[in-house]
Amino acid sequence: MKTPRTGGRRGRVSRRTGTIEKRFDKAWRRWVNPYTPVKQFSDDEIEAIHNAALRILRDIGVKVLCDEARALYTRAGMTAVDEIVRFDPETTIELVRLAPAEVTLHGRGDDREVVVGGANVGVCTTGGTPNFSDIKNGRAPGTLKSLDNFCRVSQSFDVIHMIGPFVEPQDIPTNIRHLEMMKSVVTLTEKVPFVYFRGTEAVADCHEMLRIAHGLGPEEFVNKPVCYSVANSNSPLMLDLLMCRGIIDSAQAGQLMILTPFTLSGAMAPVTLPGALAQQHAEAIAGIALSQIVRPGAPVCYGSFTSNVDMKSGAPAFGTPEYVKAAFASGQLARHLNLPMRSSGVTGSNAPDAQAAYEMEMSLWGALMGGANILLHGAGWLEGGLTASAEKFIMDIEMLQMFAELFKPVEVNEETLGIAAIADVGHGGHFFGTRHTLERFETAFYSPLLSDWSNFENYTERGSVDATMRAYSIFYDTANAHEPPPMDQDRLEELEDFVSRRTREGGANIER
Amino acid sequence: MKTPRTGGRRGRVSRRTGTIEKRFDKAWRRWVNPYTPVKQFSDDEIEAIHNAALRILRDIGVKVLCDEARALYTRAGMTAVDEIVRFDPETTIELVRLAPAEVTLHGRGDDREVVVGGANVGVCTTGGTPNFSDIKNGRAPGTLKSLDNFCRVSQSFDVIHMIGPFVEPQDIPTNIRHLEMMKSVVTLTEKVPFVYFRGTEAVADCHEMLRIAHGLGPEEFVNKPVCYSVANSNSPLMLDLLMCRGIIDSAQAGQLMILTPFTLSGAMAPVTLPGALAQQHAEAIAGIALSQIVRPGAPVCYGSFTSNVDMKSGAPAFGTPEYVKAAFASGQLARHLNLPMRSSGVTGSNAPDAQAAYEMEMSLWGALMGGANILLHGAGWLEGGLTASAEKFIMDIEMLQMFAELFKPVEVNEETLGIAAIADVGHGGHFFGTRHTLERFETAFYSPLLSDWSNFENYTERGSVDATMRAYSIFYDTANAHEPPPMDQDRLEELEDFVSRRTREGGANIER
Repeated sequence: MKTPRTGGRRGRVSRRTGTIEKRFDKAWRRWVNPYTPVKQFSDDEIEAIHNAALRILRDIGVKVLCDEARALYTRAGMTAVDEIVRFDPETTIELVRLAPAEVTLHGRGDDREVVVGGANVGVCTTGGTPNFSDIKNGRAPGTLKSLDNFCRVSQSFDVIHMIGPFVEPQDIPTNIRHLEMMKSVVTLTEKVPFVYFRGTEAVADCHEMLRIAHGLGPEEFVNKPVCYSVANSNSPLMLDLLMCRGIIDSAQAGQLMILTPFTLSGAMAPVTLPGALAQQHAEAIAGIALSQIVRPGAPVCYGSFTSNVDMKSGAPAFGTPEYVKAAFASGQLARHLNLPMRSSGVTGSNAPDAQAAYEMEMSLWGALMGGANILLHGAGWLEGGLTASAEKFIMDIEMLQMFAELFKPVEVNEETLGIAAIADVGHGGHFFGTRHTLERFETAFYSPLLSDWSNFENYTERGSVDATMRAYSIFYDTANAHEPPPMDQDRLEELEDFVSRRTREGGANIER
Repeated sequence: MKTPRTGGRRGRVSRRTGTIEKRFDKAWRRWVNPYTPVKQFSDDEIEAIHNAALRILRDIGVKVLCDEARALYTRAGMTAVDEIVRFDPETTIELVRLAPAEVTLHGRGDDREVVVGGANVGVCTTGGTPNFSDIKNGRAPGTLKSLDNFCRVSQSFDVIHMIGPFVEPQDIPTNIRHLEMMKSVVTLTEKVPFVYFRGTEAVADCHEMLRIAHGLGPEEFVNKPVCYSVANSNSPLMLDLLMCRGIIDSAQAGQLMILTPFTLSGAMAPVTLPGALAQQHAEAIAGIALSQIVRPGAPVCYGSFTSNVDMKSGAPAFGTPEYVKAAFASGQLARHLNLPMRSSGVTGSNAPDAQAAYEMEMSLWGALMGGANILLHGAGWLEGGLTASAEKFIMDIEMLQMFAELFKPVEVNEETLGIAAIADVGHGGHFFGTRHTLERFETAFYSPLLSDWSNFENYTERGSVDATMRAYSIFYDTANAHEPPPMDQDRLEELEDFVSRRTREGGANIER
């Protein structure tokens, strides 16, 4: 092993306190949700939705546009007629029960694990947006440069555990795009990357790059989840070739697959929430069962993206009350199957403004109080997923950091009850200078990244720079301060060689 | 009884749908929180905080700057030495247990009741801010005109049940300010007004105006709560003359008193959350006990305002993770006493921007999932309470409407599970035109007031008007469309005569 590159691990001067803060040295902030998940429905009602899903699977079935997947289903005891697979309820549930309740994902470095399941939460950045935007340069098709900047900023915040694919770098040809994207993610961050289901070749390329980056042998790789993928069913009740292939490929590779039906209530799912949830549940079960046929115990996650459309325009709406209800209920449905749950941070706003903030908060509270174990689109999502926004990214980091702080347990004991301190201060006094305060004040409260708590006079004197404008500066200051995390020189060379070779070979046969 | 004034009750054209919407005819939207309150602490930990509060009351006591109050306390079994009242735990808790667990407040009109307690929530507007602001005219000292505009807008939204005092109308002399403010509130709205504790005379004036507006006799008034007041203890552990007088006056008048300690952790309360809560609990119990000595069964509410200060500047911080934890815990402490709980919607932002939105959301979620029964400052609060903002008011109304929708129960049955509809649509179809959708789409989903769900192209074509700018327009459009709710002509004349007479008499002897 050669000497690691030195970049990244040196301390840096914090903008706030002037003290040295070794940002990249600290492990990320593990999230353990201390609250009992909120229930949208009674246990009986959840059972009714679950049973409705099984009836849908048995009587209506799922259209499966992949010969291999249909063959796998029938071999496991399902029936297939004219591409429609119908599911025996008992066999199906037995298959789903093979999936683990908890999965540990490994980032690079020993302190970079994410436990998915139970009360644990892994937070991902946004992904899949065609565009990128910031308030100074406006909105433009995604580029590799914009993706790299998101990687840099993501690496710098310890509330981010997993990297979403951010924007589509449309300046890179599709056949080699997955190679360039993965190279950016594994060299600029240490966090758990996302792998698109864009055909077996592209998935295999990404897995190989991750195997190299982690220094694993092929057998080790299959037993160590280091990335995650999302399979979206084509709601209502279809699984297309690409998604089936992805489910099969990731199960074989032992990597985490999140099955997320795209059940927009009123469009691709019933206008009623229980109906949309029954359909979501049916589709999730169908996809997860396929993964377990391929490899019993393959790591999976129950995905929910149920929201509603604006019935006036048909446009999808996000961060709505319906979205929150669906998130609460989806947590219950996932726990009913003893599976981890994925939800998302979302908004339909076109600007990184107050609407973006309150819709994002609604979805975050829905997801996290609903018991989500993976939060997708945790930072950067704007415009219903059509844009990754620099300012929204920083706003979201602030909101996520507040949740991380909220999740910190509070101890009740004689010292924290502070009766002696209260007696010392007496009636009408203040606690500023007391020993009880001085011993604790540095870490007692959340210290914000973006929020400005100065008074109105200072705020206006400094030019009335609002939260969105401040977020712009923080985004680029953070990107510019980034240094790549260390990677063994031989792994880095092997990665670069692999990308060069695959590029010379013409990249992958991409299906979208 | 003469003919009611006709203003207000005619239908108006909705901006959105073109249909006639009889806004002022509909009763307000009753809020019943369907979710089990979130617990911050175990039951044992809550018991420990409760016991710490009783120890504080017994051993340290409360400084009471009012002779009459001290006399009342001692007559009830407490001891008073040099203005310090020390509380016998058992007697104190017995007194608190006399307070009702639920109170019904009456607005004008039979459909204008607010139940406070259990799972019910009453939402108030903001109050007590010296300034008013909008984005076009900036920030200025409050005027009666600005207060009137807030009244008009408040009347128009059915998620607002109670009127906070909004801004201080600094263009009105203090001796008659309470008369003018109350006249605005009772003539421009039908909602439950707030009464300041600014001395016995001013309180009596306000009560008398409300007695007239409701057409009640003196004895009826005392048995029908039609307004609410807040007594803030002077933390730590003091009750000043004005607050003691207010507690006594409102208990005698049978009107709702919310006892809210102003326990900013790190400043007027310990830096540790359990300590701040123990002190809050002690102060709340002390004030509530006084009300029950005056009149057993007097309607009260347990108030929480525990937040933290920015330890760098000493400035109060709002909508923080600490605030949320305090709200969750305060709900538990109030329920421990079998009392309704008050919390608030807050932010420290200087602008109606993204920070204002996410801090407000944090406080709303903390309050409402914590089981708050009265939400103070539900709309309009900005700058840590130094300004009432037009735009923030509308942003808050949107957030409140989303919560009202979230609280609507969802039925699970064969119809809502929609299996037949799913079978009809089949694999890969859509639900837009189905009967199942058409029968429900008009009321299926929340329809926003402020949020813009149009696509980016339409949004930019219309000038990229962000949420704050849209909120400005909605505020003044709504104020301009307002017509006063009806009031019997003789009551109106009696009110006006009363205000004229009291003004001629020199108003009230105001203490602040």
